[in-house]
Amino acid sequence: MQPIGSIKAEAEVFLKQCYIDEGIAPIFPYRWEDVEEEIAETGTYQQTYDELVYGAKLAWRNSNRCLGRNFWHNLHVRDMRHLETEVEMFQAILEHIQFATNGGEIRATITIFKPDGRRFWNPQYFQYAGYRQPDRSILGDPGNVELTDQAMRLGWHPESQTRFDYLPLIIQLPGQEPRWFEIPPQLILEVPLTHPRYDWFGDLRLKWYGLPAVSNMVFDVGGIQYTAAPFNGFYMGAEIGARNFGDHHRYNMLPVIAERMGLDCSQNSTLWRDLALVELNIAVLFSYHQQEVRLLDHHTLTESFMQFADSEHQAGRLVQADWGCLVPPLSASTTPVFHTQFDGNRILKPNFFYAPLPWQ
Amino acid sequence: MQPIGSIKAEAEVFLKQCYIDEGIAPIFPYRWEDVEEEIAETGTYQQTYDELVYGAKLAWRNSNRCLGRNFWHNLHVRDMRHLETEVEMFQAILEHIQFATNGGEIRATITIFKPDGRRFWNPQYFQYAGYRQPDRSILGDPGNVELTDQAMRLGWHPESQTRFDYLPLIIQLPGQEPRWFEIPPQLILEVPLTHPRYDWFGDLRLKWYGLPAVSNMVFDVGGIQYTAAPFNGFYMGAEIGARNFGDHHRYNMLPVIAERMGLDCSQNSTLWRDLALVELNIAVLFSYHQQEVRLLDHHTLTESFMQFADSEHQAGRLVQADWGCLVPPLSASTTPVFHTQFDGNRILKPNFFYAPLPWQ
Ligand code: HEM
Ligand code: HEM
Repeated sequence: MQPIGSIKAEAEVFLKQCYIDEGIAPIFPYRWEDVEEEIAETGTYQQTYDELVYGAKLAWRNSNRCLGRNFWHNLHVRDMRHLETEVEMFQAILEHIQFATNGGEIRATITIFKPDGRRFWNPQYFQYAGYRQPDRSILGDPGNVELTDQAMRLGWHPESQTRFDYLPLIIQLPGQEPRWFEIPPQLILEVPLTHPRYDWFGDLRLKWYGLPAVSNMVFDVGGIQYTAAPFNGFYMGAEIGARNFGDHHRYNMLPVIAERMGLDCSQNSTLWRDLALVELNIAVLFSYHQQEVRLLDHHTLTESFMQFADSEHQAGRLVQADWGCLVPPLSASTTPVFHTQFDGNRILKPNFFYAPLPWQ
Repeated sequence: MQPIGSIKAEAEVFLKQCYIDEGIAPIFPYRWEDVEEEIAETGTYQQTYDELVYGAKLAWRNSNRCLGRNFWHNLHVRDMRHLETEVEMFQAILEHIQFATNGGEIRATITIFKPDGRRFWNPQYFQYAGYRQPDRSILGDPGNVELTDQAMRLGWHPESQTRFDYLPLIIQLPGQEPRWFEIPPQLILEVPLTHPRYDWFGDLRLKWYGLPAVSNMVFDVGGIQYTAAPFNGFYMGAEIGARNFGDHHRYNMLPVIAERMGLDCSQNSTLWRDLALVELNIAVLFSYHQQEVRLLDHHTLTESFMQFADSEHQAGRLVQADWGCLVPPLSASTTPVFHTQFDGNRILKPNFFYAPLPWQ
């Protein structure tokens, strides 16, 4: 999380940019007069809906680690600052899920709650539990062991434990105990994985959800920090195929897939990991396409990012980018991003930041 | 190329480290007295052979972009500072090639020439020419078009033009016209590429050389800049399989291989590039192993690099590393380096630096 220097200073910079970029610069002095007064009286200020919309798009455009920024103009902004209770918030999340999922035609969406320190404990809406087993192995997603511990500490106990149990959504209002809520399964669009050439792939019974919605980042705009402002895009296939299922410290499926493929896993140099990795990614892309759930492969998405870089340059802006996060986890050198040096990696505001883990 | 602050200051820092690390710290004051005097009289100083050896190993250890640093203790240092003419230098290079190639059991080797500004124009000993064709395509290695232009400008003209013509070695003494020399083909260990499963792969008639020897970096040690100090290690397979043959702006073989494999190249999302890339890399590893030319795959090499990082920490040193250059160009997330944040990316001396292109 970035510190706020001075609300007033950050508000002025942001609002000026906002009104200039939106082509309504003449209005700025009037708006600024009101905001200055409001800050003087209350210590903070209310952003208008239009300011919020523009700020959220800018924050996305400024996300140096995001490869999906070519779509930054296309963000649905849901203003939920008027909601108070956890139950109301949960309801709004369910609406976000339905609106954004849109039967598979995923819509980039952000839902913004009151900026009073309220938080989601989950890094994403949908996360599969990772259960510690007596033999020290993990059932489920090893990436979520800590969150699973926390959910169980708060009283969540699934009837049976499987590899793919959704964790409850944990919402915490400022100064209160967190509360948890289970998302109705019928709202969650899921894609069982199959492979265009390997019939046995379906027997692995792998699946993933369609909607990647990040819920633990702070939306920092014009001196205001929205600690609960979950957003979603759609997936790049490799996030699922290379990272979630391929990483050694996640579902670690490469050895299983390589064995099913009949590869010689006795030596690194047969590149069995690499072969299994590509087939796993093919399965992800194939399955999402077949079920008409929107996602992009890493070739198409990196090409789209290069268009973003072009448009930014044409608009006279530098492209701030975190190269290390943008190069795809597989076949990096076959994508244009690998061969490009961007202008810098400066962190501009508005932006999205991580906050310290809520349970620590 | 890094500037030299003061020869004396850099000499002192380096020599002190050298004599302490080598366990002969008590000798340092005597050596330093001599060096100080020599610098006062001549403006520079002669390093001893032992200083040169230690400096070269340190420079390797300090190479933040090198993934082969686990082997830094194992460097053969050839002191050729007494040689004067281009012909003598060329002769020493031929000896370097034979010694380092060692029938395929490649030995990491550096040959150090007089630090008077003499240079090799070639980035590596072995580089395939890239010829501009009337239709604006390139025959050979598109990465070497400029060097090929230069060689031809200097009067080099191959009898016939093929995809795999070695460029001559171009040597320039300070203030003189460069001279070029052709390396006798029988000294160059080459590996024709075949594939363990695809018989047609051999028909592509691809081959690569066994010895990657970098000849255009400046070895900067203790205030002295050795502008001609070519060194070699052995290959990581992916340098050949992913970059040299796979890159769009190099031999660009992925479309050809994918077609031979019968892949559907009409859409990115079939991952035809990724499939072809892995098979190409399998061919490289398979062929080098079969012909007993030393190289390592990216899994084994990154594991070895993690051992290097461990040993450095155990020795109480930080690991300076350029993450972006260390992650392999394919299947990055299956290697440990991808998931590791190193201590920093500070450039320490001694080190190897690039100099401006000699023909500019
Ligand atoms: C529209 C489709 C989108 C695609 C395909 C996309 C793609 C990506 C990818 C591939 C990453 C890297 C993920 C990782 O390796 O951890 C990423 C990160 C990120 N994206 Fe996007 N994105 C999209 C939409 C959005 C939206 C709507 C926002 C915010 C409004 C956003 C903000 C971010 C941020 C803040 C990160 C960095 C997260 C972190 O640091 O862990 N993205 N995105
Ligand atoms: C022994 C086997 C070796 C292996 C497997 C190895 C591996 C590598 C690899 C994979 C790279 C990155 C190449 C690229 O992407 O451009 C690299 C770069 C480098 N290596 Fe090594 N290396 C070895 C030996 C050496 C030796 C003997 C030296 C010097 C004494 C050295 C110094 C360097 C330097 C300076 C770079 C950076 C070059 C640049 O910036 O373009 N390496 N090495």
